[in-house]
Amino acid sequence: MGVLVVGTVTLDTVETPQKRVEDVLGGSGTYAAVAASFFCSPVRLVGVVGADFPQTYTDSLNDKRIDLEGLTRVENGKTFRWGGRYSEDFNVRDTLFTELNVIADFHPTLPNSYKDTSYLFLANDPPQLQLSIIEQTSNPKLVVCDTMDFWINEEREALEKTIERVDILILNDSEAKLLTGESNLLLAARAILRYGPKRVIVKKGEHGAISITESSFFSAPAYPLTQVTDPTGAGDSFAGGFMGYLASVDDVSEGSIRKAMMYGTVVASFNIEDFSINRQKSVQFSEIEARYEELQEAVRF
Amino acid sequence: MGVLVVGTVTLDTVETPQKRVEDVLGGSGTYAAVAASFFCSPVRLVGVVGADFPQTYTDSLNDKRIDLEGLTRVENGKTFRWGGRYSEDFNVRDTLFTELNVIADFHPTLPNSYKDTSYLFLANDPPQLQLSIIEQTSNPKLVVCDTMDFWINEEREALEKTIERVDILILNDSEAKLLTGESNLLLAARAILRYGPKRVIVKKGEHGAISITESSFFSAPAYPLTQVTDPTGAGDSFAGGFMGYLASVDDVSEGSIRKAMMYGTVVASFNIEDFSINRQKSVQFSEIEARYEELQEAVRF
Repeated sequence: MGVLVVGTVTLDTVETPQKRVEDVLGGSGTYAAVAASFFCSPVRLVGVVGADFPQTYTDSLNDKRIDLEGLTRVENGKTFRWGGRYSEDFNVRDTLFTELNVIADFHPTLPNSYKDTSYLFLANDPPQLQLSIIEQTSNPKLVVCDTMDFWINEEREALEKTIERVDILILNDSEAKLLTGESNLLLAARAILRYGPKRVIVKKGEHGAISITESSFFSAPAYPLTQVTDPTGAGDSFAGGFMGYLASVDDVSEGSIRKAMMYGTVVASFNIEDFSINRQKSVQFSEIEARYEELQEAVRF
Repeated sequence: MGVLVVGTVTLDTVETPQKRVEDVLGGSGTYAAVAASFFCSPVRLVGVVGADFPQTYTDSLNDKRIDLEGLTRVENGKTFRWGGRYSEDFNVRDTLFTELNVIADFHPTLPNSYKDTSYLFLANDPPQLQLSIIEQTSNPKLVVCDTMDFWINEEREALEKTIERVDILILNDSEAKLLTGESNLLLAARAILRYGPKRVIVKKGEHGAISITESSFFSAPAYPLTQVTDPTGAGDSFAGGFMGYLASVDDVSEGSIRKAMMYGTVVASFNIEDFSINRQKSVQFSEIEARYEELQEAVRF
């Protein structure tokens, strides 16, 4: 089985305490699609770029065998640009600028060949856009959606309508608290279930992630990393790896969901080791399996 | 096997967003001894109180079959008092006051019957006092020590001498970073191993705990709690439960250490559900086993 990823494709400027990079390949769609590509095929990507989007970045996505039929190129437009700066310990990220450019007027129409997708991942995007994609697909087996604080604050009504239609909502711990007004994470996750999703996955960064349904609780550890270069895209890599694994086994049981979260965790850990998708270019599947096994050993008691 | 706990026995005033309690039974020694008492016997407690220490609190410790021969009562002194206030989400605690009273001049001499203890837990105390206790014991099988930011800042030299003599150091994530100057938790823990301990256990509050040796890594989940009443003493309860379980099986292998951390996690989760040791008074061992099994299920993948 394959995965359809809908998300942003961006040119990022990232400042860390060690280094600054400019206009590197980024975006929620990019990170998620690249992560999914380790596990399944085809990985289809819906997004938009401008005329300034470098051919080398298109080549990088092609190298990962990502289907780009759904990637629109606006010839008189500029690619979405984002700039951010990390604190010394990487726990605080300040957004320096956001230039929406071609993304501001993007209303994607799915290619016909994309409409029967079984595994749909809606990476961070305006909730109206996410809903429009759901409505263009024909009854996918699994719809997973990510969101962020901006949409919770600015487009709550549209977001609630979208969340109602998804099987799994993935979001950060601070976003789960913001969405529900609950300071206890478990209560926040349970409150989100009442919006409609059958499962909520809360990402806690260096503290791992949790998954909650009406009847299950899973605590996923983070991979113990000593080399953090750039956390940008870690959450999208987690979600992309998660979707890619589920599509590869074509199973959404509790057991597969848990394994998928751990594969997502592993891909995210590699993403953090370098800027953009640089580390993902060289990661071998045997390296992914090795870290997965390390994590199995790390929680055994 | 039994456990010897050395720590503070205090009268605490605690303010939470819901309630304020005054002069309730608290202290690192109290919480650790009560937690250990669920698993092993005898639990011996070395500490000091003043003439104002209520008989009902002594009765509570006796009810838990804690050996109080090592609890000194200073007839012309006042018990150590501590006051703290929690933020709305319990993630910030401000100390409102600290009255050392009888603890300021406490230089304990171990009762003869305590000197051959196999399992020694040095709860938070001045590092010089902790070292003096180690020197009064005859070659215990396991020495575990807790500490806090105050001693790291004020008594670093003495603390380093104490740490050098312990098998396991237990401390908070922020304290591990403070002690080593490392912002990456894994690097901080590894740096602490170079001070002498064979193992470092880092407590991360609601995010669980990790254990590190030269050759092992264990990630312990937190118990998913929805009812938080008072987190005071959670870390000491964790350590006490940890020691109590190890003494009960009289084994310090990696496998037993991991199980001990999970039993410590469970006892800490009960402690948080009420003020002081109120919840521990009614907890049945079957309830402890039930949460332990829940945690096993929560990390299985």
